[in-house]
Amino acid sequence: MLSVNDFKPEAVIVGAGEFPSHPIPLKWLEGCQRVVCCDGAADRYLETGMPIWRIVGDCDSLSPENSLRYAPIIRRFADQETNDQTKAALYLHGKGYNHIAIIAATGMREDHTLGNISLLIDYMRQGIDARIYTDYGVFIPVSGNASFRCPAGTRVSIFSFGATKFRAEGLRYPLHDFTSWWQGTLNDTVNDDFSIEADGDYLVFINYEK
Amino acid sequence: MLSVNDFKPEAVIVGAGEFPSHPIPLKWLEGCQRVVCCDGAADRYLETGMPIWRIVGDCDSLSPENSLRYAPIIRRFADQETNDQTKAALYLHGKGYNHIAIIAATGMREDHTLGNISLLIDYMRQGIDARIYTDYGVFIPVSGNASFRCPAGTRVSIFSFGATKFRAEGLRYPLHDFTSWWQGTLNDTVNDDFSIEADGDYLVFINYEK
Repeated sequence: MLSVNDFKPEAVIVGAGEFPSHPIPLKWLEGCQRVVCCDGAADRYLETGMPIWRIVGDCDSLSPENSLRYAPIIRRFADQETNDQTKAALYLHGKGYNHIAIIAATGMREDHTLGNISLLIDYMRQGIDARIYTDYGVFIPVSGNASFRCPAGTRVSIFSFGATKFRAEGLRYPLHDFTSWWQGTLNDTVNDDFSIEADGDYLVFINYEK
Repeated sequence: MLSVNDFKPEAVIVGAGEFPSHPIPLKWLEGCQRVVCCDGAADRYLETGMPIWRIVGDCDSLSPENSLRYAPIIRRFADQETNDQTKAALYLHGKGYNHIAIIAATGMREDHTLGNISLLIDYMRQGIDARIYTDYGVFIPVSGNASFRCPAGTRVSIFSFGATKFRAEGLRYPLHDFTSWWQGTLNDTVNDDFSIEADGDYLVFINYEK
């Protein structure tokens, strides 16, 4: 049974999207030993005074001052084929940390938002259990079947990445094989848990508020 | 040749997402005779004092005061299968207005953002030429081939909705048949125009700033 509340991340990635204000994404930073900032996102994050462990990315957007001051914790990867969020996830994966909460991955430029969200599927396929926590809910990548515990009335959306044979229990509206993103949105739970069966990969977005 | 600047919308839909602050989405409201607000989005929009023509939706989120005061311009559609943005688009379509700028469709809840963006493809298939203007760029739905005029260095992303045989001219990185959303992101233009060939439907996101 997967749950929104039982996730125990070993590391937090801070992206360059809108910095969260909701307590759920922010709580992952409290006492976290491995906060990894994506490149220039560190400039803004460092102003909060919260803990930082590494700055990872191609380091083309970090300020010259912080590039110098934080040189010992910067890990530079120049690969043009991946974005900074992926560089951070792969860096953690290489260190053996595969349970990752990602915050500040959405908001602002929508092309970044869409890219960052969809990358959760790629990370999952590489053995990384990463979730994106926004100010509104959490994106959880799933392959095959999954069950979730959350209060009745929780709003849930499902985004297919090639998955077929969708079936659900505990959701108000039946699932089918989606051909567009909107078709799996704005469902809600009728019990205190729900389960999804499918062949293939998909994202579940669970809103914090009912 | 499609262009970011030559679009001439006959109507503007105002969604319940983040209200824009960028002048490009806001300029569509200036002097617009047909501003349609999605349900409860009207509560916030009316405070701006900008023009309004209709309030469309299932009207479950509009305040009782505005429901009463604006009753003559409210068009209520109870269909549970479509969201308020779609109700507004279909209302305009029914009146013969098929060139539509949509603002305040993104930001805030990411499930709404994803749903609203993807619906542009459905509208296009029904003969509606609708674009979403955000604070960062514009989403343009395309079927088949298209050319665009915009300054060299403009950042462009492409999101496939089942399209295949992608080919581009004037973009820095070659296109291929995308299997995930991120794969078409973060391209940029090398000339003052670019063109895309494909079999099927896709969205082009063009950033306002280089």
